[in-house]
Order: sequence, then structure tokens, then C-alpha cells
Amino acid sequence: MLGKYLETVREKCPLIHNITNYVTVNDCANILIACGASPIMSDDCGEVEEITSICGGLNINIGTLNKNTIPAMTLAGKKANELGHPVILDPVGAGASALRTETAGKLLDEVQFAVIRGNISEIKAIALGTSSTKGVDADIADAVTDGTIENIIAIAQAFSKTTGAVIAITGEIDIVADEKRAFIIRNGHPMMAKITGSGCMLTAMTAAYITANPENVLEATAASVCAMGLCGERAFLTARKNNSGNSSYRNYLIDEVFKLTAENLDEGAMYQLI
Amino acid sequence: MLGKYLETVREKCPLIHNITNYVTVNDCANILIACGASPIMSDDCGEVEEITSICGGLNINIGTLNKNTIPAMTLAGKKANELGHPVILDPVGAGASALRTETAGKLLDEVQFAVIRGNISEIKAIALGTSSTKGVDADIADAVTDGTIENIIAIAQAFSKTTGAVIAITGEIDIVADEKRAFIIRNGHPMMAKITGSGCMLTAMTAAYITANPENVLEATAASVCAMGLCGERAFLTARKNNSGNSSYRNYLIDEVFKLTAENLDEGAMYQLI
Amino acid sequence: MLGKYLETVREKCPLIHNITNYVTVNDCANILIACGASPIMSDDCGEVEEITSICGGLNINIGTLNKNTIPAMTLAGKKANELGHPVILDPVGAGASALRTETAGKLLDEVQFAVIRGNISEIKAIALGTSSTKGVDADIADAVTDGTIENIIAIAQAFSKTTGAVIAITGEIDIVADEKRAFIIRNGHPMMAKITGSGCMLTAMTAAYITANPENVLEATAASVCAMGLCGERAFLTARKNNSGNSSYRNYLIDEVFKLTAENLDEGAMYQLI
Repeated sequence: MLGKYLETVREKCPLIHNITNYVTVNDCANILIACGASPIMSDDCGEVEEITSICGGLNINIGTLNKNTIPAMTLAGKKANELGHPVILDPVGAGASALRTETAGKLLDEVQFAVIRGNISEIKAIALGTSSTKGVDADIADAVTDGTIENIIAIAQAFSKTTGAVIAITGEIDIVADEKRAFIIRNGHPMMAKITGSGCMLTAMTAAYITANPENVLEATAASVCAMGLCGERAFLTARKNNSGNSSYRNYLIDEVFKLTAENLDEGAMYQLI
Repeated sequence: MLGKYLETVREKCPLIHNITNYVTVNDCANILIACGASPIMSDDCGEVEEITSICGGLNINIGTLNKNTIPAMTLAGKKANELGHPVILDPVGAGASALRTETAGKLLDEVQFAVIRGNISEIKAIALGTSSTKGVDADIADAVTDGTIENIIAIAQAFSKTTGAVIAITGEIDIVADEKRAFIIRNGHPMMAKITGSGCMLTAMTAAYITANPENVLEATAASVCAMGLCGERAFLTARKNNSGNSSYRNYLIDEVFKLTAENLDEGAMYQLI
Repeated sequence: MLGKYLETVREKCPLIHNITNYVTVNDCANILIACGASPIMSDDCGEVEEITSICGGLNINIGTLNKNTIPAMTLAGKKANELGHPVILDPVGAGASALRTETAGKLLDEVQFAVIRGNISEIKAIALGTSSTKGVDADIADAVTDGTIENIIAIAQAFSKTTGAVIAITGEIDIVADEKRAFIIRNGHPMMAKITGSGCMLTAMTAAYITANPENVLEATAASVCAMGLCGERAFLTARKNNSGNSSYRNYLIDEVFKLTAENLDEGAMYQLI
């Protein structure tokens, strides 16, 4: 029953420090508020350590990274580690450029992450050094399907062993795994791939879930992934009723996160724990 | 009767230069258009003086500030002062980091502001050097309530005396004060705190109101604050009807600013001038 | 019959590299997905050549340019030229500052563009060195009307001859011209001028159309311009029905791009080819 992890977010209202890309940053801020948390965005080396110190958790997203924000990611990550704050990594576009792959690698060397969330191509790029990333989307050759799921769980669990982080690989089917256990999650809707930022928003929201539930990082991550997928399903009902396209769908998705209750999540979550 | 200050914005269509954060910048641009003004965003030292010269007013917002944009704020602010253009400051997150508090302080030393707008924690941080800022939100200990209102007006008026600026402190109750007078404003809706950018948007819109009404900065600022709060109330009616969450609410809020007439504002503004 | 150029976008799903401003970047990403393409945003010199190499086309937009992104534009543009990828330029605010006008000029010197799209003031600023740009909007003195249209086509065709690019000048009436031919397009709705980013979104979408249709750059550009205008008309019907303002209108506009079919475009496109 994952609903209780949402309740904790709403009770604690964790403040989350985000070093994130300028494409989806507004959506990340609004989804953090929607789920019950509070966002602050800051990426200058002159303040990131101080900002992360007043927060409860840190979200590092490497989309639109640049030479000024990369060192800020390391500084903030190390400070959060010192303070025992959970840190989450979204390796947006890892595999698409050496800069992104190397930045993700450097962050993995220098910062202890509680959770790493990406699509399968991004995770393969940083876990195995190989992938066929198509820009910021997963390559179709990498798709998580019932046929490939065992192999992907094995990759996630091996990567969890190496990094000590919970690994969340999201796509048509989602995997959330630590070394020993794995959630296989079947919530979600194809429309979520038709907006920019589904992944970034999920990572930001997961930062809130794990910050509010530090003793249950695996379960809290699974709860966040189920919640996002369930909201994606519910948003589609509104979009279909209103004959909407992707832009309104994005709003409905965040709206559903705002409205989601623990009961909704308990009833709608579709997962299997192995 | 504050509606006439909106009418002036619509008649003059002032061009507003914004040096602002990348989180809420799109909303700031759209709300400026919605109220009848025209936005331009520019933050590179190589052009900010020239850009501000072709504009009528300047909006400086220190959210997501960085080492490149801080000097641009000073350059643009000084140029606007030279030209007699009104400049407004939004000290986002002042008190949350030394960099933000010091940047706000340095701007106050070097630039003459017509208006400073923040939440109570931010204003206390820059006016008194003390606060308990919770990231970019006001701390609950700082809340503006009927019990604390006299003290807060005193802070605003003392800060207005020091700075020569109209001070707008917004929250559940809003205060807009100069040295001698104060508007106490009771428009608004709690849902406005559930989106990112209510404050940034209000500051941007206020830049338009004061640029269009340079002889009545106090009244124009009060008109802008009332307009924003009133639109927040009206947007909530649409959100409730549509069973919306915070993301759609943000759109409805800007929509209401677009639709607001001087008559609406005259009828709906809830303020007391003391 | 322009619908076929949309069909090609949907079939090929081109990956478009965007170096663009932080104001409208989210809308640009969502409209690229809406039309059938896939976006990636990247502006750091350390990766732009590699990112552009995995893409099919490049969109350079000079809004909120800065000293870090300007060299990235040149690097990416030259690499795209080497690889034979189409490059499109949106000279946002050219004429409003020397930095923007000169950056546009330098890009024209160093990069071969397939298409240049701007409002009439921007195009005059870079083609003739004269204009009366009002910030990022076209000056009213420059308006494209039936009375000025011949003169404007002449400017576009002369500029096409100089640059080798298709020139798209958008406003109340839109002109898409190469040296010899010109589309005069009458789709669109005045509400499109009441949101930020109509122009940026059109340029981004046009990047997708020309990347998918490299043999027919003039026609593909005209198709994109007609599609945007037609979606602007259709979005207005929804906005009027819902009594919406500009923020919801922006969402409906992207929604319509998402829903637009080749048949819709064939039926709704209003153009004349001379």
C-alpha cells in the first residue's frame, strides 16, 4: 500500500533544491507544489551549498547543463551528502553527448545518490557505457517490454549494487529496483511521452517522496512512479473528454498530481514486487 | 477607484524590460501581455543598457540569479535610473542565501527603485537583516495577519523611508505603503500560493502599472496588487467549476488578467487606505 | 496541397536541435512534439556539435542570447552545415540591440541558413540595417498589409538572393519567399499576438517541416506557416467557447498543432503562390 508515502509528503512539505534544465523547470516547480512539497531552484556556485543546506533533498537534472551549472551540481551534491539529504539524479540525454555521459559519470563518482531515474537508454549509457539514445528519448531498440523485462531488472539491480542507489527505469513498463528487490509498475499512458518533461517532473516529484520517506527509499520511489503513471491515466480521461492535445494534457497531468489522494494511489497503483 | 490605472496600461502599452529567473519567465511574459503591456527579456551585460533604453520600465527579479546576470541587473538599473524609467525589485529568496541577500542589498545601494515587492520574509531579510525565509516562500512565523498588521505596516513604512521606494508586502493580506500612507488589501485566494510564480507575475505586472502611471506609483502598485488578487479569486471559480488543480489554475489566473476590465477592478478591489 | 509536408514530419519524426531562449523554450519543445517531431535543447559549447550531429535539423533563436550561447550558435551552425542538416534562424529582437543585430549578422556570415523567419521589423533590421523594432514585436509602422505587400515581397526576395535562404516574414499577412517565388498566406488570428512565443514556436515547427522535407524547403516552410495560422484560428474557437484569455489560448494553439491532420491543412490553408 503505497498511499502512505504520499501522505508523508503532504504532512512534511519537504523543501526540494533543484538544479535543473530551463526547458521543464516551471513544470518541475509546479508538480512539486502539486504533490505537497515546496521547490527552490538555484544553480550558481555562489549559493548552491547554502541553498541545499536549508532544503531537505536535492534534485540534479543534467538537461541543458553548461560549464557554470556542472560544478554547481557537484558542490551541491557533496554538501547534501554531508548533511545526509537524499540526492536524486536525472541523467537527461546521457549517451547523446560525451559531455552529458561524462558529467553523469563524474557525478556518480563524487556524489552518493539515493535514486537515479532515467529512461532505459540513459540508464544503459551510464551503467554500461553503451546505448542508442535518441536525443532525450529512449531508443525504440531499448524499449522495456515483457520480453526484455528480466534483462532490464538485471541491469537495474547490478547498477544499484555498484552505486548504492535505487534505480528507476521508466518507459512503457517501469522498473524500480535496489540490489535485491524490484517493483514492476504498469501504470501510465502513452500520452505522457507526447509532452516534454514527464521524466523531469517524475524525478522532481520522486525527490519529494524520498525526502519525506528517508527510511523507505525503494517504496517511496515506487509510490512516486505509480502516482505519476496513475495521474497520467487520469489526465487522459480529461484530455479525451475535452478533445485536448498535448499542451492541455500537461496541465491536466499536474492537476491530477495536485488532486491525488492516498486512497486514489492505493486503489490505482498497478505494481508487482519481486 | 483603481480601475483607471489599468486603463492607462491598456492605452499606453508600456514595453517592460525583465531581468528575471528562468523558472517563471514565460508566465511573466504572458501576464505582461495579458494586462496590456509588452515584455522583453534580456540579461546579458552586452545589451541590457540598450534594451532598457528602448523600454519604459525595468523589472529586476533575483530568482536563479548567477554571476553573469547579477552585473547585468546593476548595469540595467543604473541606466534606467539615468533615463528616469521606474525600476521594480523582486528580492526572490532574499534571506535564503547570502548571495541573494547581498545581491538585493547591493542593488538597493546602487539603483533607485520605485517599488520593492516581496513576501514578508524577503522584505524583512533586506529591510531588517533578519528573517526566517523558507526557501522562496514566506515562513509561517512571518505571516501577515490582522494581529501583526500594524507592525508590518511600520516595517514597510520605515523601509520606504530608507529606500524612497513604495514597498509591497504580499501574502494573505497585502500591504502597499510609502512613508506616509498604506493600502491594506484583502483580495486574493489561497490557491495563488499553490502555483510557482504568483509573486514574480505580480512584480512584472506592477512594473507595467507603474510605468504607465509614473505620477501615482503608490496607487498604481495598489491597483496591480488588487488586480492580481481579484483575478486569483475569479480564476478559482473557473478552477472549481472544472475540478482543476494548480496547473490549470495558473492558466486561468493569467486568463483573468487578460479579461479584467477597469470596471471589474473598481467593483472587486477590496482595500483600505490609511 | 501542403498537407503532405505535415505527413512527412509525422512519418520521419525528425529530431531537432534547438539553441533557443529560456522564455518560450518549453512551448517550442511541446510544439515540436505536437507536430510529430522530437526536440532536444542544448546550448553549451562543449556539446552542441555532437548534439547537432545526432539530430536532423537545427533551430537557432537569438532571444535571451548571452556570451556563452552566441559561440555555441556558430559552432552548431557550422557543424550542421558540414553535415548537410538544414538550419533555421529566428532573429528575435534584431534591431532592438546592437548585440542582437550583430549576432544575427555574424551568424549570416558564418552559417548557411535554409530558412530565416522573423517579423517584418526583425527582417528589415538584418536585411536592410534599418527598422523600428519595438522590442520583440514588429513596429506598427512596419505592418504587412495589402498596401505594403509588394514592397515586402521585394525585400524578402532580395534578402533570399543575398542569403540563399527561404525568407518567412510573419504578421497579419505572412510572406514565404525564395528568389523567384512567394507564398502570400492569410491564415492566422490576432490572438496569436497576445501570447509570447508564437513566432518562436513557428520557427521551431518550421525546422521540423524543412528537416522532413529537404527537397521542398519553400513549400515545407509555407506549409508550416499555414499550419500555425490555421491552428491559431482553430484554437480561437475553443478559447471563445471557454471564455479564455491568452494563457489558455497558448495551450489550445499547441493542442491544435497536435490534432492537425494533413486533410485539415489541405482544407484550411489560405495561400496564394506568385
